[in-house]
Amino acid sequence: MEKPTLPKGTRDFGPAQMAKRQFIFNNIRSVFQKYGFQPLETPAMENLSTLTGKYGEEGDQLLFKILNSGDFLKDADKTNLETGNWKLVTGDISEKGLRYDLTVPFARYVVMNRHEITFPFKRYQIQPVWRADRPQKGRYREFYQCDADVVGTDSLICEAEIILMIKEVFKGLGIQDYTIKINHRAILSSLAEICQGGNETSLFVAIDKLDKIGEEKVKEELRNRGFADANLTEVFEILNFKGTTIEKIEFITKKFANSEAGKKGINDLTQVLQILKDFNATEEHVEFDIALARGLSYYTGCIFEVKINNVAIGSVSGGGRYDNLTGVFDPNDKKSGVGFSFGVDRLYDAMEELNLFPQEAQISSKVLIAHFDADSKKYGLRILQQLRAQGIASEIYPDAVKIQKQLDYANKKTDSVCNCNRFGRSEKRSPYLKEYENR
Amino acid sequence: MEKPTLPKGTRDFGPAQMAKRQFIFNNIRSVFQKYGFQPLETPAMENLSTLTGKYGEEGDQLLFKILNSGDFLKDADKTNLETGNWKLVTGDISEKGLRYDLTVPFARYVVMNRHEITFPFKRYQIQPVWRADRPQKGRYREFYQCDADVVGTDSLICEAEIILMIKEVFKGLGIQDYTIKINHRAILSSLAEICQGGNETSLFVAIDKLDKIGEEKVKEELRNRGFADANLTEVFEILNFKGTTIEKIEFITKKFANSEAGKKGINDLTQVLQILKDFNATEEHVEFDIALARGLSYYTGCIFEVKINNVAIGSVSGGGRYDNLTGVFDPNDKKSGVGFSFGVDRLYDAMEELNLFPQEAQISSKVLIAHFDADSKKYGLRILQQLRAQGIASEIYPDAVKIQKQLDYANKKTDSVCNCNRFGRSEKRSPYLKEYENR
Repeated sequence: MEKPTLPKGTRDFGPAQMAKRQFIFNNIRSVFQKYGFQPLETPAMENLSTLTGKYGEEGDQLLFKILNSGDFLKDADKTNLETGNWKLVTGDISEKGLRYDLTVPFARYVVMNRHEITFPFKRYQIQPVWRADRPQKGRYREFYQCDADVVGTDSLICEAEIILMIKEVFKGLGIQDYTIKINHRAILSSLAEICQGGNETSLFVAIDKLDKIGEEKVKEELRNRGFADANLTEVFEILNFKGTTIEKIEFITKKFANSEAGKKGINDLTQVLQILKDFNATEEHVEFDIALARGLSYYTGCIFEVKINNVAIGSVSGGGRYDNLTGVFDPNDKKSGVGFSFGVDRLYDAMEELNLFPQEAQISSKVLIAHFDADSKKYGLRILQQLRAQGIASEIYPDAVKIQKQLDYANKKTDSVCNCNRFGRSEKRSPYLKEYENR
Repeated sequence: MEKPTLPKGTRDFGPAQMAKRQFIFNNIRSVFQKYGFQPLETPAMENLSTLTGKYGEEGDQLLFKILNSGDFLKDADKTNLETGNWKLVTGDISEKGLRYDLTVPFARYVVMNRHEITFPFKRYQIQPVWRADRPQKGRYREFYQCDADVVGTDSLICEAEIILMIKEVFKGLGIQDYTIKINHRAILSSLAEICQGGNETSLFVAIDKLDKIGEEKVKEELRNRGFADANLTEVFEILNFKGTTIEKIEFITKKFANSEAGKKGINDLTQVLQILKDFNATEEHVEFDIALARGLSYYTGCIFEVKINNVAIGSVSGGGRYDNLTGVFDPNDKKSGVGFSFGVDRLYDAMEELNLFPQEAQISSKVLIAHFDADSKKYGLRILQQLRAQGIASEIYPDAVKIQKQLDYANKKTDSVCNCNRFGRSEKRSPYLKEYENR
């Protein structure tokens, strides 16, 4: 009989990992709720008509598709089967797929329930998503996303609150050295305006790689795509400007004095910073980064990205404003929204590297009752019931085995151990038990 | 553009339902943890080799299968494709399926990690499962299971603790009128011994329907399967015996005096009841039911089933002891275990019917700050920051709209409302805000 294995790119989370993951999830969830976001869960399976075409052609290939139940070949086109045209056959034999992200299911939910929803609608969603990507270090085929979005308002208070929520989550997790990069899609557009003729998307895609491949390679890529050297010089003069956020804003205010897009972007960013002040919050950790592009083309306003400093892990959170969440399902119903997401797997890895998980995050019994004969076992059960009545997670070793084995179990699993001897006295006491006995 | 829909048998859970579901989950989770169970999560996808053959032929048909990525037709047998032999084609084009329950993935986890696990291993698992069943009222294609199992011990303390956990969960949920039915596989076996020649499984399957189709139809079914009338009379004399648990035990002790299986079953049950006493717990809600069969053939010891009385909903929890969890993956490694599961969807429906969800279960802001000009909005932000610093879930209406609209939003979403006028005084106060101001 073959040893069972896990599908590649998937993972089990045993007790120790679960405890740490729940520590992260609980932290994020409680911040979301404190800021007025309410939970939503959508099914793992969506109709392929809901998912297809939303993530580009590459995304469509990465969707996990579910085989129709029963005789799935019945309605399949015979010619396609014979010629091995698997792309066309897919549509015949599969009508459902696994959730690829949380944004599209959220948009579908909003469209389907728009008459019941009170707008602005603040929802958070913490669920796994699945992508048939090639697995590699830090990239999985099943992973969790933690999204929070406000839809139905264009108030910049939402952007400021995203910054506050990121700060609060990081404080709760104990992460101290991090940077919240912020930029605005319209500022990127006015960069593109400089390069008359150059394709806007090509510019953003190239700029997005600046961190990874460096200025020279980005320039090369853009030159190959028809960008003029003179324009690139001006673009990089702006991208390379160093200074505080205020200095950067002053600099580009002059540069973009004649750009409507530029003025809009600068005005939004200035307002977000002002709202932060009104909140009595500081700009600490916040950095205006003109080079922040975030490849996704659906952002239309502010964009965010968070990096933990001095840890070799990509961005752990990101998001932005979009003007058209629901338009893909209903062109007459375009709702503006703004949202962001935490990448739990990366947060987990960063916290492990920084040794930030507190001991208390462990989910384990506080007391194990050991016993060495029938009487002490019986006495132990009564104590156990009382400990649990006080809300103290505790257990009794279920079998009559040597004390050493029971203590080994305790050492591996619990914080402390209490050995009940036949006279009903505890020889080795847990602080919890003491506290209980003093009541 | 077509309106998006949900795949049949699946559901969205909006904020109101999520809050109620989280109330149930949190309750179950905290009881599991208090009894020393630790969390486990396994991937949604398992290899089909892990899942197939574990749930019977019918179960195999109900597995959701995932289409291989890329050109899945490449390695498919041409003849099977041409003759439309979909069952054989399935194996060629799909190697992964969605989790059908939590027990098989748990067994796989135990076998794969046996050298790292400290036994006895107490794990709980709260995750969705998927079944390609025909959807109907109360039956979904995606639903959650909440399992707790102890593996690696045959101590009857575990059985007693299952009863205690069920009682504690129901207390936390506010469910008062319910019955925990308990029986033992060996007692069912000694019932079968009475019917020499009759097939044991047929007997259990028929008895399992007693509640639904009544005594006469069960007898008819068994007669058709070759059971003798004289034997059936004796079996039903036992099944129909009325009395307290003690009286029932006395009655079958005499009846099964010559059955080794019967003696084992009676002895186990008696011990479980004695352990409950040692725990200082009562037998309240517990009922020994000789007719409780639970169709599943893998149980070998005590079996449980919980029904909420006076609610037209099937059992909301069930479980039992099995001697061979891991044997399906490794015949040399048979571990005894005992476990049980809560059916969250049924608990939810029952609690709705009994109107048991507390108001506090709602996940929503406690304060909404309304505003009617720039100054009051600015003042509101400062208050908001302070409220949140005190851990009070609160929000500000993001847009400058009429007060009426803000209050409507508040009425629909939050518990209370605070209207900050330009002089910074609250006109309508929430108890939370008052409490805050008094600090």
